Amino acid sequence: MVLEHAVIDVTPGREAEFEAAFASASANISGSPGCRAVRLRRCIETPARYLLLVEWERLEDHTETFRQSPSFQRWRQGVGELFAAAPAVEHYAEPA
Amino acid sequence: MVLEHAVIDVTPGREAEFEAAFASASANISGSPGCRAVRLRRCIETPARYLLLVEWERLEDHTETFRQSPSFQRWRQGVGELFAAAPAVEHYAEPA
Repeated sequence: MVLEHAVIDVTPGREAEFEAAFASASANISGSPGCRAVRLRRCIETPARYLLLVEWERLEDHTETFRQSPSFQRWRQGVGELFAAAPAVEHYAEPA
Repeated sequence: MVLEHAVIDVTPGREAEFEAAFASASANISGSPGCRAVRLRRCIETPARYLLLVEWERLEDHTETFRQSPSFQRWRQGVGELFAAAPAVEHYAEPA
């Protein structure tokens, strides 16, 4: 299992729009092959910041299958215009 | 429920020491009042980076009760010398 970790800074003032867009667009992630869970959390200290945590069965389910799919395009079309900057995306795994 | 989110950069080359120290010291977190879960994950792109995710019932369980406790001192004594820098700590909650 691999955890996709993305810190998303949204344009300040557009948080409610982002949350609504996320609610519509996130099915593009959760329905993708190998996706086990999608969670969105909002930062308490920096309210225009969100944390997206996605559990994937394998790294390639995110970096290859999802990113090359029409679902990725639809996801980014749904929420991308509300990003203040390109999200910082990393992947984490259980320590060996 | 509040998610504590800490990105911990360990001194490169000391990852195995950190993981062993974490295994010993993390009970100081998990046994603290209001702590529901503690997870550690290792970054795939930056192997000396770790993600600590702790679920707390309330923000104050972390920022007040835990940080003012002897358990916090023991936790930091157990792992702190292996940190390359002070961890960046934030808190996240479910969107309203």
